[in-house]
Amino acid sequence: MMEYKKINRRNFIKQSALAGASLALMPSRISASTKKVPNLRLGVIGTGLRGQWMTNLCLLRNDVDIKAICDIDSGMIHKTLNIIKKVGGKPPDVYKNGQHDFLNLVQRDDLDAVYIATPWEWHYPMAVAAMKQGKHVGVECPAALKIKDLWDLVNVSEKEEKHCMLMENVCYRRDVMAVLNMVRNGVFGELLHCQGGYQHDLREVKFNNGKQPYGGGFEFNEKGYSESKWRTQHSIDRNGDLYPTHGIGPIHTMLDINRGNRFVHMTSTASQSRGLHKYIIDQGGKAHTNANVKFKLGDIVTSVIKCSNGQTVVLNHDTSSPRPYSLNFRVQGTEGLWMVDNNSIYVQGLSKEEHRWESDKEYLKQYDHPLWKKFEKRAADSGHGGMDFFILNAFVEPLKRGLRPPLDVYDAASMSVISPLSEKSIKLGSAPVKFPDFTRGKWEKNKPIFGLNADY
Amino acid sequence: MMEYKKINRRNFIKQSALAGASLALMPSRISASTKKVPNLRLGVIGTGLRGQWMTNLCLLRNDVDIKAICDIDSGMIHKTLNIIKKVGGKPPDVYKNGQHDFLNLVQRDDLDAVYIATPWEWHYPMAVAAMKQGKHVGVECPAALKIKDLWDLVNVSEKEEKHCMLMENVCYRRDVMAVLNMVRNGVFGELLHCQGGYQHDLREVKFNNGKQPYGGGFEFNEKGYSESKWRTQHSIDRNGDLYPTHGIGPIHTMLDINRGNRFVHMTSTASQSRGLHKYIIDQGGKAHTNANVKFKLGDIVTSVIKCSNGQTVVLNHDTSSPRPYSLNFRVQGTEGLWMVDNNSIYVQGLSKEEHRWESDKEYLKQYDHPLWKKFEKRAADSGHGGMDFFILNAFVEPLKRGLRPPLDVYDAASMSVISPLSEKSIKLGSAPVKFPDFTRGKWEKNKPIFGLNADY
Repeated sequence: MMEYKKINRRNFIKQSALAGASLALMPSRISASTKKVPNLRLGVIGTGLRGQWMTNLCLLRNDVDIKAICDIDSGMIHKTLNIIKKVGGKPPDVYKNGQHDFLNLVQRDDLDAVYIATPWEWHYPMAVAAMKQGKHVGVECPAALKIKDLWDLVNVSEKEEKHCMLMENVCYRRDVMAVLNMVRNGVFGELLHCQGGYQHDLREVKFNNGKQPYGGGFEFNEKGYSESKWRTQHSIDRNGDLYPTHGIGPIHTMLDINRGNRFVHMTSTASQSRGLHKYIIDQGGKAHTNANVKFKLGDIVTSVIKCSNGQTVVLNHDTSSPRPYSLNFRVQGTEGLWMVDNNSIYVQGLSKEEHRWESDKEYLKQYDHPLWKKFEKRAADSGHGGMDFFILNAFVEPLKRGLRPPLDVYDAASMSVISPLSEKSIKLGSAPVKFPDFTRGKWEKNKPIFGLNADY
Repeated sequence: MMEYKKINRRNFIKQSALAGASLALMPSRISASTKKVPNLRLGVIGTGLRGQWMTNLCLLRNDVDIKAICDIDSGMIHKTLNIIKKVGGKPPDVYKNGQHDFLNLVQRDDLDAVYIATPWEWHYPMAVAAMKQGKHVGVECPAALKIKDLWDLVNVSEKEEKHCMLMENVCYRRDVMAVLNMVRNGVFGELLHCQGGYQHDLREVKFNNGKQPYGGGFEFNEKGYSESKWRTQHSIDRNGDLYPTHGIGPIHTMLDINRGNRFVHMTSTASQSRGLHKYIIDQGGKAHTNANVKFKLGDIVTSVIKCSNGQTVVLNHDTSSPRPYSLNFRVQGTEGLWMVDNNSIYVQGLSKEEHRWESDKEYLKQYDHPLWKKFEKRAADSGHGGMDFFILNAFVEPLKRGLRPPLDVYDAASMSVISPLSEKSIKLGSAPVKFPDFTRGKWEKNKPIFGLNADY
C-alpha cells in the first residue's frame, strides 16, 4: 500500500465532507405526501432492452414489486413477461394499448413510483403525467429535450411534491466514485477543470437489419429494430450534444452543481457531419435508399461550460465515427489530476516522480467509495460493471424511506438542458448560452448529498 | 512489420499528396529581391537561453554565418560569445547598447536574415524593423501579441517582399511528422477534429531566485532571472491562451490551414486563477511581497476553433498547475484517431481488435516522415529531440535557395492571433470571435507546402 502524505488542509477538507455527510442523513423530504413504504410498488414504462434489464435488476431485489408494465411493442412486453416468469415473479398488469396507454398505468392507485425507459421524446410527457398522478419518477436520460419542458418538470415536481430522479448510472461507476471520494478528501486540491464526454461508436446502434439490435444492416425508423427505431431520427433532426449525461453526470457531482456551485454558460461547436452517411454508403452502397438521408448531427460536438465557482468543463459527443469507447474523464485541481484514458493520475507531493504520470490503480483502491465496499457483492451480481445496481438502489432506497433521491429533479434538469443549449449555441455560431437556474437560487444553500449516505 | 490494408481511396489520396509535393518543389518566391545565397548571413537578436541554443545549432551547420548578435543583457551576450569561441567561430559584432540597439543591427548591409528570440512583446517591432531593412525574419512564438500588429507584419512582409517565418519547432516533432504523413496518406480518412495544447507546469519558469532560470524562489521581473524577467508579467496582465503555437502548430499543418482551409471562429473559456498565487503562498509564505500580486491568467484556458472545411479544434493552455508535460494532441478522422497521451491509435480495418486502442509505435515507424529518415543523424546530434535542427533547417535552406519557408507570415499570423482572440473571447464571456483572413482570400488556392519538400 502506498504511503500518502497527510497535510492539515486535506484533513480539514475531509472533515468538511464528513460534516456534509451527516447533514445528508437528515430527512430532506420535499413533501408531506412522501411516506415510508416497506416495498416500492413500481410501474415500468418502456420495456425495450434497457427496460428489460432494469426489470431484471428489480427482480433481484426483495423490496420492489413490479405491478405494471407498459410498451407499444408486444414483442418487448412478451420478453419482459418471460424475464419475470423465469424468476417466479408475480405477473404484472400489462399496458400495451397504443402510445397513450401509459396514462392508464400512471393512474393506478397501487403504485409508489414509475420507471421510464422509453424513447427520449417520451420521457418528459410520461414523467409529468406520472408526477401529476402522485407517483415518483425515475427517468432514463435525458429527462426532457426542451428547456421549457425541463422547467415544467421542475414545476410539476415542486407542485405535486414528487421526486423525479435522473437514472444516470455512470455517476456510480467504481472509478468515478473513487475519484469523487478523492475530490472530497482534497487530493486534487481545489478543482479547476473537468472533462467528460460520450465517445461511443453508435453506428451499429443507429443502423441494423431490423431483426437484431446491433448492426447487420443500414435500416432505422420503421424498418429498424430496438434503438434504431427512434434514436437515429435525432441525428437527422438535431445538431448538438444529444447525449450529455454519461459524461456530465460524474462531473456534476464532483463539482457540487446545484449544491454550492452551478453551470453558468456554455458554448458548443460541431464538426462536419460525415460518419452516418459514410457508414451507409461504405456498407450499403450509394444505391441504398438511406444513402439519400441527410444527417444534421456533427460527428464531433465539443461544449465548454463555465461554472459559478470558476471551473471549466469540456464535454464532447462523438458517436458517428470508428473509435474505442471512452467517457473521456479528466478531473483537475490545484494539486493534481486524474485522466481516465491513461488510467493515470498525478498528484503533487504524492506521486512518486515529479511531472510523471502514475497508474491510478492504488489510488482507486485506497479511495474506493464506502458504497462500493459495502455493496460490492450485490453490484457484481447485477452485471454491467455494477453501476446499474447502484443507480436502481439510489432510486429505491430513499423512496422507501420517504427521502430525496441523490440525483433530483434539479440535477435532471441541469444535466439534460445541455442538449437543447448545445443545439442553440451551434445554431448561433457557437455563441455562449446561459444555463437556466432551475433551483431558483436554492443552489447557493443546498448541500451535497450524492454519495454521502451510507445506504445509497 | 504490420500488414496494412491498401484501399483505392487511400492510394488515391496518397497520390494527391505527392502531386502537392512536386508543386512545392517549384520556386514560390514572394519577391524579386529574394536571391540565392551560398551561406545565410544571420543576425541574432535575443541571446537568452533560447538564443544561445539556436546560435549553437547554427554553429553546427556550415551554411550559416552569424555576423552580429544583440541583447540588452551583457551576461547573456558574454555566454553567447563563449559558445561561439568554443567552436572556433568568428566573433560576431555585438549590439548591447540598450533596448533599441537592434535597430542598428538590422541596418547592416551584410545580413540576409535575422533570428529573433527576445521577450514576446519585442517580436513584432523587431520583425517589422528587420523586414523594412530588407532582412528575412525567423521569429520565435508568438509573432506578435495584437491583431493589428499581426496585420502589420503581413503588410510589411508583402510590401518589402521579405519572409517572416514562425519558428514553431513542434511542427517538426518526429511523432507529429509521422502523423502528418498518415493524415496525407488518408489513414484517418477525412479529418473531423483535432486537439492540442500547452500543458506544461511553468511555475518554476515564472518564478526563480534571480540566479538560476528554473525555480528556487518566488521572484520575477527585475528580481527574477531569464524568462521570469518578462514572461510572468503576461500572467498578471492577460487572461487567454498565452502560448498557443506548440499545440496549434502541428494541427495547423495537418488541417492545411491557409492552404485550402482556414480557421473561421473561436471561443475561449478560462477557469479561475489559483496556481501562481498559490505557489507563492505555499512556498514563500503569505508574508512574501509577491503574495499580494494578482494574476489575471486563468489556470486552464480552453479554446474551440471552427474551420471552414468543417473541422473543430480544441486547444488548451494549462501552465500554472502541477501536471505532467503533454501537448494533448489528438487527430481524428472518419476512419480513426491518434492520441498522444496514450501513445495510442485506432484505425478501422487496420487495428487488430475492433473498438480497441493499440500502440502507435508501429504506425509511427511505418509512416516516419521522409525528412526524419533523411536527417535523423543530424537531428539527433542537435539535441532537444531533434525538432530544433528541423525548424532551423526549414529557415535556412529555403532562404539560401531564394524560396518561401514552409511556415510563412500568414501561418505566423493565423497561429499567433489565437492569443489576442482568446483574450477577447474571454472578456466577452466566451463569445465566438472571428479569425481575420490574413491571406486575403489566397487560402482558397494556396497549396500545402509544409513537409512536402525533400530538403526541409
